[in-house]
Amino acid sequence: MKFSIQKDRFAQSVQDVLKAISSRTTIPILTGIKIDATEEGIKLTGSDSDISIESFIPKEEGEQIIVEIQQTGSIVVNARFFNEIVKKLPSEKVEIEVITSFQTVIRSGQAEFNLNGLDPDEYPQLPQIEEGEMFKLPTDLLKAMIRQTVFAVSTSETRPILTGVNWKMEEGELICIATDSHRLALRKAAIETDLNAEYNIVIPGKSLNELSKILDDTQDPVEIVITENQVLFRAKHLLFYSRLLEGNYPDTSRLIPTESKTKLELNAKEFLQAIDRASLLAREGRNNVVKLSMIDEEVIEVSSNSPEIGKVTEQVKSQAIEGEEIKISFSAKYMMDALKALEGTEINIQFTGPMRPFVIRPEHDHSILQLILPVRTY
Amino acid sequence: MKFSIQKDRFAQSVQDVLKAISSRTTIPILTGIKIDATEEGIKLTGSDSDISIESFIPKEEGEQIIVEIQQTGSIVVNARFFNEIVKKLPSEKVEIEVITSFQTVIRSGQAEFNLNGLDPDEYPQLPQIEEGEMFKLPTDLLKAMIRQTVFAVSTSETRPILTGVNWKMEEGELICIATDSHRLALRKAAIETDLNAEYNIVIPGKSLNELSKILDDTQDPVEIVITENQVLFRAKHLLFYSRLLEGNYPDTSRLIPTESKTKLELNAKEFLQAIDRASLLAREGRNNVVKLSMIDEEVIEVSSNSPEIGKVTEQVKSQAIEGEEIKISFSAKYMMDALKALEGTEINIQFTGPMRPFVIRPEHDHSILQLILPVRTY
Repeated sequence: MKFSIQKDRFAQSVQDVLKAISSRTTIPILTGIKIDATEEGIKLTGSDSDISIESFIPKEEGEQIIVEIQQTGSIVVNARFFNEIVKKLPSEKVEIEVITSFQTVIRSGQAEFNLNGLDPDEYPQLPQIEEGEMFKLPTDLLKAMIRQTVFAVSTSETRPILTGVNWKMEEGELICIATDSHRLALRKAAIETDLNAEYNIVIPGKSLNELSKILDDTQDPVEIVITENQVLFRAKHLLFYSRLLEGNYPDTSRLIPTESKTKLELNAKEFLQAIDRASLLAREGRNNVVKLSMIDEEVIEVSSNSPEIGKVTEQVKSQAIEGEEIKISFSAKYMMDALKALEGTEINIQFTGPMRPFVIRPEHDHSILQLILPVRTY
Repeated sequence: MKFSIQKDRFAQSVQDVLKAISSRTTIPILTGIKIDATEEGIKLTGSDSDISIESFIPKEEGEQIIVEIQQTGSIVVNARFFNEIVKKLPSEKVEIEVITSFQTVIRSGQAEFNLNGLDPDEYPQLPQIEEGEMFKLPTDLLKAMIRQTVFAVSTSETRPILTGVNWKMEEGELICIATDSHRLALRKAAIETDLNAEYNIVIPGKSLNELSKILDDTQDPVEIVITENQVLFRAKHLLFYSRLLEGNYPDTSRLIPTESKTKLELNAKEFLQAIDRASLLAREGRNNVVKLSMIDEEVIEVSSNSPEIGKVTEQVKSQAIEGEEIKISFSAKYMMDALKALEGTEINIQFTGPMRPFVIRPEHDHSILQLILPVRTY
């Protein structure tokens, strides 16, 4: 294998596939990046066996020559060192050559590295995903759907299925749901697809977080292919594979109240900042709990109390308050996560009682919903 | 005590004195910030008993009113919470009031915090430093002298005196020296002083690092007052006290070779980057050692070898090589620290043999010198 390549483009691809590589893997070859030089260009692969990422660099793009291939071939090199080396190379151009017994030479300017590589034939095969059943999402919508749900997955392995996000496809609509059993995030969107296929899968939260980091903020479509135990996201020059979580995701539809006894309308930013301030002291207490109560028909009060440190109260104007008076306590962290996930400036909160889950939505958008279970303190 | 104050100005001062406060202190009152409201303005104090910082906010500056004092007085409040609260207050203005039994109310916009304060009479007195013997340094020069020496102090408590920087004043010149016994950094400068006083003190490296962080990048003079066991740095509205280290600093003058057998002239940036690349692999081995050898009369080679990972070699052009051929090994980290501390684009390195300390200087500046002890490998 021998080729020369533009450094910046190469470094970016190395960085991308690195996101799949774990330094804690027990399989030595998976600490490496696999490099394949073909007649078409350079393919880089990284994997931790849960997530696999393939990045392709074509020989040419438009008029520009990116790679010059002198000899095709493959090698696996230590990912961490390779990444650091490529980033720090002195020249705009890098030459990579495999000499005897997997010795890999990296030349750039006056610098010459000689790395001990590994046998590429030992690198595991990526899952073979059949073409066919797939749907498309614009990259920015995909990233928004991930961002607005994935934070609510469980971090505990007690119920492994809750560490993933449930993706359901029903009647041309994709519904993403995450819950850790204390709060729930739901986001839906209409989907561009020819199929009437119905899916119900659970994608690990970690996979979605890594995917989101790699994707650019464009409107280019990402193709999504779902198989029995894998999902493949296909963007330009990038393949992202994730295994799916096994098991049935709980039916969360019964959790979401269909009626409400109290409804508040608030400016999202003002309310978020008030919660943030109240949580400064709440953090010291157990559970980071803040209280919300109605003062009159126009004003609510957010408060928290940490006997050793002190207390805080803040009044927040409400655009509209309807229904029964309410006093309720909840986790400041869950509320802040939910408010950050919502888009739009005005939000409404619907309560059905001080010990019942309550729902937060943007004022004029039914595609997203955040639900929080209150904490008993009053 | 009751006053209202501009939030941003107040937050900046809180941030400054916070640098003296350690969360690990065993003296509870020192986890607090002391606030004194006088007729002249607001004084904030933070201390960990090694370092004490006082920041003063005058009532007015030019035409602008910064503080309005309704009632003078003092209080001590938990520094960490107070800092976080002040940063996140909603309005441009903050009102602080002490009510009964050290309860401190912080009001801003619609937010009201009520913090449990501590008795200000229990706060330790800051060292009383007599006026009189002092000298001045422009702030930017002071910061440069700190930056160019303090990194070389010892991090080990085996010889506590080496954790400080030795400041010697002799014949109108200030000489700052730091060494951890493997390398040494020296920087000197002529001083503006009326006195013929001679000092020889050792300032803890930690104090100088914190001082450097607080000082702005201006040319305003900092007044420096030295007593038997304290040093006081006095900038505009800021007092920074540090205790001195006790004991005699070793005489380092004999360490610095006065002759040389080999002299190299190099571009500092090119050389630094080559060392940085060589250290990528060297870091894995013991001691992060790289080798330097002469190739011919114009080129040196930097290399390192980590049998498990691989090796790297890089040739670097030298502007001039004089004297005997040399092969020498040294810590890449020490070399990078030294090169970053030197200013100027061209540097020279003077060797007196493969096992003797060598000296790095800017090509046309005799006020600064870095010395490194080699490592035996050849």
